Amino acid sequence: MTRLADIGEFEAIQRILASRVPGPGVAVGPGDDAAVLRPTEGMRVAATTDAFVEGVHYRPGDLTDLELGARLAAANLSDLAACAATPRWGLISMGVRAETPIATLVDRDRGLAQALRAHGASLVGGNLAKVQGPEWMSLTLIGECAPDRVWTRLGARPGDLIAVTGYPGRAAAGLAMITANGRAAAGAEWWTPLYLAYAAPASRVEFARALAATHAVHAAIDVSDGLAADLGHLCDASEVGVELREADWPDDPVMVRAATERGVDATRWAWGPSDDYELLLALPAEARERAVEAARAAGTPLTILGACTQLETLVWVGRDGSRRELPRAGYDHFR
Amino acid sequence: MTRLADIGEFEAIQRILASRVPGPGVAVGPGDDAAVLRPTEGMRVAATTDAFVEGVHYRPGDLTDLELGARLAAANLSDLAACAATPRWGLISMGVRAETPIATLVDRDRGLAQALRAHGASLVGGNLAKVQGPEWMSLTLIGECAPDRVWTRLGARPGDLIAVTGYPGRAAAGLAMITANGRAAAGAEWWTPLYLAYAAPASRVEFARALAATHAVHAAIDVSDGLAADLGHLCDASEVGVELREADWPDDPVMVRAATERGVDATRWAWGPSDDYELLLALPAEARERAVEAARAAGTPLTILGACTQLETLVWVGRDGSRRELPRAGYDHFR
Repeated sequence: MTRLADIGEFEAIQRILASRVPGPGVAVGPGDDAAVLRPTEGMRVAATTDAFVEGVHYRPGDLTDLELGARLAAANLSDLAACAATPRWGLISMGVRAETPIATLVDRDRGLAQALRAHGASLVGGNLAKVQGPEWMSLTLIGECAPDRVWTRLGARPGDLIAVTGYPGRAAAGLAMITANGRAAAGAEWWTPLYLAYAAPASRVEFARALAATHAVHAAIDVSDGLAADLGHLCDASEVGVELREADWPDDPVMVRAATERGVDATRWAWGPSDDYELLLALPAEARERAVEAARAAGTPLTILGACTQLETLVWVGRDGSRRELPRAGYDHFR
Repeated sequence: MTRLADIGEFEAIQRILASRVPGPGVAVGPGDDAAVLRPTEGMRVAATTDAFVEGVHYRPGDLTDLELGARLAAANLSDLAACAATPRWGLISMGVRAETPIATLVDRDRGLAQALRAHGASLVGGNLAKVQGPEWMSLTLIGECAPDRVWTRLGARPGDLIAVTGYPGRAAAGLAMITANGRAAAGAEWWTPLYLAYAAPASRVEFARALAATHAVHAAIDVSDGLAADLGHLCDASEVGVELREADWPDDPVMVRAATERGVDATRWAWGPSDDYELLLALPAEARERAVEAARAAGTPLTILGACTQLETLVWVGRDGSRRELPRAGYDHFR
């Protein structure tokens, strides 16, 4: 197996670039000092960056190299979806050990590129650095958005509905099931949807763009730390609280079955640390139908979980009418 | 001393952001899912990324945290200068150990931000990830360039002059002197210019932009691997060779003195691996005066080293008329 140490940096870059497919809007692509891109007239530029570190964001062997690349793309695509931007160009910076096979690098790059291409974006630049410790990948994704359709975390108002795409907590559940059973088991098991939520998260880019065109959203954030934590971020930025109703919570029998099997409380996955790369939205009550319709058209599951309040607290209302404040604990790298 | 582990990811980010100064063209700055930027109508977008890894690109203690941040900015600014782009917006992705003091992070960020601000750019986004091994920083820098003024490595023609800014090899010389004498000695010594070339490289952004406006350049590349290696990249892309004249080589008595003291051949620094972040330019003979004038106006040292040839070789012509082919060896991470 050919390793990076065998062929060196420049030949490795050539082999990675050989598998790339040119994307639109690129005047000067990879291989020069900088990429030169053709932005769309009248649009704003949106930019985000997210990184995965070996042993921190992923355990070697839990994901294939293609999946690892695609998941890093999803993390960044989700950030652009949360501001209703259209992904266009990516730059990938990697720290790699000299003994890593070149095929591994090519697969990670292909996974990234394929996931970006599915949403109209391409890789236009990058950097390859040697590391002696854990490997890492850092993607910067550049997109475009219409000036009058940009979503931020700020703007939710008391009375706004809170909606979430997908099934929060599935990524955490999927990771727990892979850890317990190994990824070899994932493909053919009843918990495949959980495995996929972790290994190949959907990116809500097209849904976000369609919904932004209807001006239905007051504020948005992506769920990458955990639902309670990210809902807390949105509430803090918008200076509102949220009241959520257990009765409106999305049914997720697969996750409940996994929780039973693992002996954990399913709400720990649903509320706690889980990087689902789903969207949390605050929308005025009159926009409900537009949001539901846009979700249906995009094939995106969407649930209205509750509503914003004036009190700056996160309150959970049980089926029995009981009320309790939610902990905002999400994933924090350093604590 | 407060460490990251003491305050956690979100408080750390707040403290870093508190020291930032907002830059121009930013509709949504740091702290949201993505930054939203206002590009200049009619301009193209240029983007590059470069990373530093602890123990690979820098040894802890050789640079202050401010210098480390500024040097990473310089690496990226140089890439944009090499395509004659105007730097505008940066995104910084960092891998940091939990025991690192927050003051260290704030200083690195300030070093980055100050160096970018000196050339009109600001930090608009980032990511903070935990590492257990060596730390790393990866910057993506976004700029703008006029469609008819973009430089690439491709376009040098036989007969073009080859010019270089600054004094190639000084960064390698400075690093060698810091390694031998410690950085404490650098400030007040005769080799301060070498120390500065390594610790605080000039960015040739304004010179590049002024020169691009005169349409004087056929091809450009920045010197980040070493002069012979990067000249080789430019020649390969343009399908030309180069003949360089020893008699035209810039006098650099400080570097020669350091080479004598260290017992090395000064040409090893000048030609070999050295990340000077200077510019190599190929320009038509009739543009010589324009280039010299632009360099004078920008206060940028500029030397014409030789000329492009049809044969695709790098030839060194000694003062005595002797000819030899230059090795293209530059810095390769993995070999």
